[in-house]
Amino acid sequence: MKLIRWGSADQEKTGVIIDDISYDTSAFGGDYNEQFFNNNGLVRLEEFVKANQGRLIEIPAGSRLGSPIARPSKIVCIGLNYADHAKETNAPMPPEPVIFMKSTTAMAGPFDDIVIPKNSVKTDWEVELAIVIGKKASYIEETEALDYVAGYVLHNDVSEREFQMERNGTWDKGKGCDTFAPLGPFLATPDEISDVNNLRLWLTVNGKMMQDGTTANFIFNIPFVVAYVSQFMTLLPGDVISTGTPAGVGLGFKPPIYLKEGDVVELGVDGLGTSRQQVKNYVKN
Amino acid sequence: MKLIRWGSADQEKTGVIIDDISYDTSAFGGDYNEQFFNNNGLVRLEEFVKANQGRLIEIPAGSRLGSPIARPSKIVCIGLNYADHAKETNAPMPPEPVIFMKSTTAMAGPFDDIVIPKNSVKTDWEVELAIVIGKKASYIEETEALDYVAGYVLHNDVSEREFQMERNGTWDKGKGCDTFAPLGPFLATPDEISDVNNLRLWLTVNGKMMQDGTTANFIFNIPFVVAYVSQFMTLLPGDVISTGTPAGVGLGFKPPIYLKEGDVVELGVDGLGTSRQQVKNYVKN
Repeated sequence: MKLIRWGSADQEKTGVIIDDISYDTSAFGGDYNEQFFNNNGLVRLEEFVKANQGRLIEIPAGSRLGSPIARPSKIVCIGLNYADHAKETNAPMPPEPVIFMKSTTAMAGPFDDIVIPKNSVKTDWEVELAIVIGKKASYIEETEALDYVAGYVLHNDVSEREFQMERNGTWDKGKGCDTFAPLGPFLATPDEISDVNNLRLWLTVNGKMMQDGTTANFIFNIPFVVAYVSQFMTLLPGDVISTGTPAGVGLGFKPPIYLKEGDVVELGVDGLGTSRQQVKNYVKN
Repeated sequence: MKLIRWGSADQEKTGVIIDDISYDTSAFGGDYNEQFFNNNGLVRLEEFVKANQGRLIEIPAGSRLGSPIARPSKIVCIGLNYADHAKETNAPMPPEPVIFMKSTTAMAGPFDDIVIPKNSVKTDWEVELAIVIGKKASYIEETEALDYVAGYVLHNDVSEREFQMERNGTWDKGKGCDTFAPLGPFLATPDEISDVNNLRLWLTVNGKMMQDGTTANFIFNIPFVVAYVSQFMTLLPGDVISTGTPAGVGLGFKPPIYLKEGDVVELGVDGLGTSRQQVKNYVKN
């Protein structure tokens, strides 16, 4: 199943994509949130969709897409999970995953603008595959970790490098600005993906390929990451774990390249669709 | 006003303390959450309490207290905000605040047990004054910052030092374990506190004074901290900012002292009451 949320920001309705057509599922009731995932929502939604086959209404052409999941309790991110990216940032190969957190206020739709924060000069991109948690997970084992995964979603882990690394710590400072977490276009349930640890992921800026990697190069793969994070904090249904980015971020160039107003970022992960963000400067409302 | 939440974990009801007596306010409706603070809840609650004076029912003796606020969108913490604590941890004086985040699943009531995580050998204490945000704050100025504060609450920023500092980063890894954020006993609105930047705060372990400081020694005071955090992420109503801990944490002793099963931690901040946690080892459910 492919889940979407669509409509105005903060007033999104739910939907699904079937054979490349997007349908409204707001009659199902509720949002794609903690309660949904906790109450067997994916199974119930599938039954709803089957029961209403042929009667679902297409969403209006040109509708805005929001994040395919509602605001979770947290967004946990894994740092330096591809050897090539660790190398380009001059970081040593991590002996175990780096964990940081992203304010959930950073969430945005997959085609919303990226807003360069006030006083920012080092806003950077990071294509990532993100995991959505399906049920409460605490101290789980790697062998059972995939039972706790509701699905996967494309994520641009937008990062302000000065805030992240030159402003007296921690990384969280450069990760949670508004619009820094475009998610989607859709949440894909695991059955949609043949091998999640072997997917191409890529990102272009103004049409130029900057990142072109594969999740086959994960240092720590998905079952390991889910089990690992659950040793340090309890994961709730709907929570997001973003699994890190391959080489090719702006910081890795000599000299570094950062986003500026007017730039267009496009990104994708095999099986998880593509997204596109235009870059704008912050303007006071 | 002093706000409390009471009853079984995850089923807390709301209440207020008036002249040291705790009253049920569940008839007011809703919880002390984002919606409450966003919709002028403090003013409406005060009116409700006045309108029902003499008719409010006392909460049952022996009731458990929960966190006085419901789960917020985030808990942001300030690191090394007292010069004496920075020194004891061998950290340089910070030129600007260190920011990290605590998983909201760490929240607990003020008298709940602290559970030492699985595989932990360095669980430590940190008495802190925490700020509760009253309205959405983005890029606010220091001069207006107090307008965005709903109140203050006592917080034990429980920390696992090995997870925090020896497990390949970031600090978030040692801050978000279950029970690592006992909050309360109550939320005090700003009118209850004469000078929030001049309050004694203290913590004992098994009756022995370990931390005894004053918020007069803040490196970065409350208006600065609120305005500062809002430059990096949007703060939502009900969000918590914990302002750092004074000297006297277990890590600072030579050799360090860490919590073990059976220990009793008591802490307080002038005007914000006291809390008490018993320490237990993790036991698999």
